[in-house]
Amino acid sequence: MGLGNLGQVLARTFLDQGHAVTVWNRSQDKADDLVARGATRAATPADAIRASDLVVICVLDYTTVRDLLTPAAGDLAGRVVVNVTSGIPDPARELGAWITDSGAAYVDGAVYAIPQTIGTPEAFVLYSGDEKAFGRHRALLETLGTAEFVGTDAGLAAVHDVALLSGMYGMFAGFFQTVAVSGSAGIGAARVTELLVRWLKEAIAALPAFAAEIDAGDYRTQTSNLDINAVGLANILAATRAQGVGVELLTPLHALFEQQVSAGHGAESLARTIESLR
Amino acid sequence: MGLGNLGQVLARTFLDQGHAVTVWNRSQDKADDLVARGATRAATPADAIRASDLVVICVLDYTTVRDLLTPAAGDLAGRVVVNVTSGIPDPARELGAWITDSGAAYVDGAVYAIPQTIGTPEAFVLYSGDEKAFGRHRALLETLGTAEFVGTDAGLAAVHDVALLSGMYGMFAGFFQTVAVSGSAGIGAARVTELLVRWLKEAIAALPAFAAEIDAGDYRTQTSNLDINAVGLANILAATRAQGVGVELLTPLHALFEQQVSAGHGAESLARTIESLR
Ligand SMILES: NC(=O)c1ccc[n+]([C@@H]2O[C@H](COP(=O)([O-])OP(=O)(O)OC[C@H]3O[C@@H](n4cnc5c(N)ncnc54)[C@H](OP(=O)(O)O)[C@@H]3O)[C@@H](O)[C@H]2O)c1
Ligand SMILES: NC(=O)c1ccc[n+]([C@@H]2O[C@H](COP(=O)([O-])OP(=O)(O)OC[C@H]3O[C@@H](n4cnc5c(N)ncnc54)[C@H](OP(=O)(O)O)[C@@H]3O)[C@@H](O)[C@H]2O)c1
Repeated sequence: MGLGNLGQVLARTFLDQGHAVTVWNRSQDKADDLVARGATRAATPADAIRASDLVVICVLDYTTVRDLLTPAAGDLAGRVVVNVTSGIPDPARELGAWITDSGAAYVDGAVYAIPQTIGTPEAFVLYSGDEKAFGRHRALLETLGTAEFVGTDAGLAAVHDVALLSGMYGMFAGFFQTVAVSGSAGIGAARVTELLVRWLKEAIAALPAFAAEIDAGDYRTQTSNLDINAVGLANILAATRAQGVGVELLTPLHALFEQQVSAGHGAESLARTIESLR
Repeated sequence: MGLGNLGQVLARTFLDQGHAVTVWNRSQDKADDLVARGATRAATPADAIRASDLVVICVLDYTTVRDLLTPAAGDLAGRVVVNVTSGIPDPARELGAWITDSGAAYVDGAVYAIPQTIGTPEAFVLYSGDEKAFGRHRALLETLGTAEFVGTDAGLAAVHDVALLSGMYGMFAGFFQTVAVSGSAGIGAARVTELLVRWLKEAIAALPAFAAEIDAGDYRTQTSNLDINAVGLANILAATRAQGVGVELLTPLHALFEQQVSAGHGAESLARTIESLR
């Protein structure tokens, strides 16, 4: 249920594995290609639910999931609902409780893939909730990407989702700054992105080291301290502004650096910035 | 000149290659280890400059570079100054002009490495300015990391630096949000960072596709649109706030998403966000 950019690819992957797949989408035409590939079109959400033991849902948000399932609540008993719509912990728990009360098993999933990487070795999906139901469908779910069960609290996949998507959005924000400022100096997006990808793949290596400092609460560093980064980022923001490019995406990070420097931690690791967030 | 976290490793790499290296640092004790490995200690910046044809500088910022070179300006003629201090374009051009006026050749460098990765295949350094001087010392500079000359405008390495470091800082900002919010739910930094690194390495694949959309000015997408990301990020910010964790690092990105959605571009690519920055 839900044949948006991601849902279409999920359904296609199941079809490609030879499974019988019934599809439903609010805008019916998004099912056309899948029906041409052998899927069955359901006229209503209730029809879709009645068609299978396993119901996979991928729509806009959790409110939509609830709205779609409500008229079909009587048909849920005995089925497994795997909801890979992105969501946040408390609504995931509430949805899980409601579905469980309806007699179905609930598994919440968080997808770490874009449609193009579904089914590749890089893709992974974190699941939480009903562990038995997950186990029963694990082989099927593994066709989407590595399937990892993170706990029986239905909200746990969403806890991870909030965390990991925050990281992704930060990277995207940095990317926008990169391309905007280099574009203002006449460097094309494709060229600078080639360099950026090279650099980010290298700079990612700093993250586990930062994580170790954070877990230990020990921010002594021989790598790169807050003083130098506060100065460096201030210069970057000034240069970006001078190019007529907005700096709003990185200004708050600089403020956190300054907060830590003012508190006397200039010689300590960049990783200490997190103390200003929590 | 300059034996901070990065400068020390640069000097050590040159020493390890068997080069004669004279070192200078404001706090003299930072030279001790290098002297024990065979480096010569210079008492003043002028002594350091007079000792070599090639002068490599890595200090806090460009003002410091200028302050260090000024008393020794009479000794610069005929030498090559490679300045890998991080900086921004206009000061790099001014410094280059001043050094050139003093009769030396100026090469500006931007280092894409942390001290630990200097000399590894992942490390790279972009150079701009005097191409002949760069060519003369290229073999030596390649020992630090892949050396790439980006243009004769002395400010170009810094243009790239501003751009690529912006991208890195965005990724770091995302990392802080990831660890802070998952930490509030009892997940350790090391564990979530392991997942984040896996996810970021995958999500990086989206950047060249975004770049192509930006270069083409064509934001039609089948991957992930602004509507879904505006909703998703709003949920993430709300869930993060509910955990008592600050959201200031990602709030501005959400504001740009909303700006594009309000302008009627909700069905278009996330990459369109850049239009709100430039
Ligand atoms: N795309 C990705 O790369 C990706 C990756 C990981 C997770 N996700 C998550 O997967 C979910 C879907 O993402 P997507 O990219 O596929 O989004 P999308 O292309 O915008 O598709 C949204 C889907 O939700 C349906 N929908 C929206 N409002 C509805 C309503 N009121 N009633 C019934 N159906 C409704 C849409 O139906 P219509 O076709 O009728 O509009 C469509 O099927 C989101 O939670 C997203 O965060 C996406
Ligand atoms: N570390 C990295 O991962 C990295 C990566 C790429 C680029 N960079 C860039 O490399 C440069 C140095 O970084 P770093 O990490 O080595 O910084 P650092 O460890 O803080 O070292 C700063 C250096 O600058 C010197 N310095 C500061 N103020 C001075 C002054 N007024 N007069 C003379 N010397 C002064 C310091 O001397 P004292 O020892 O006497 O304080 C020290 O040698 C920065 O521009 C940085 O952005 C660093």
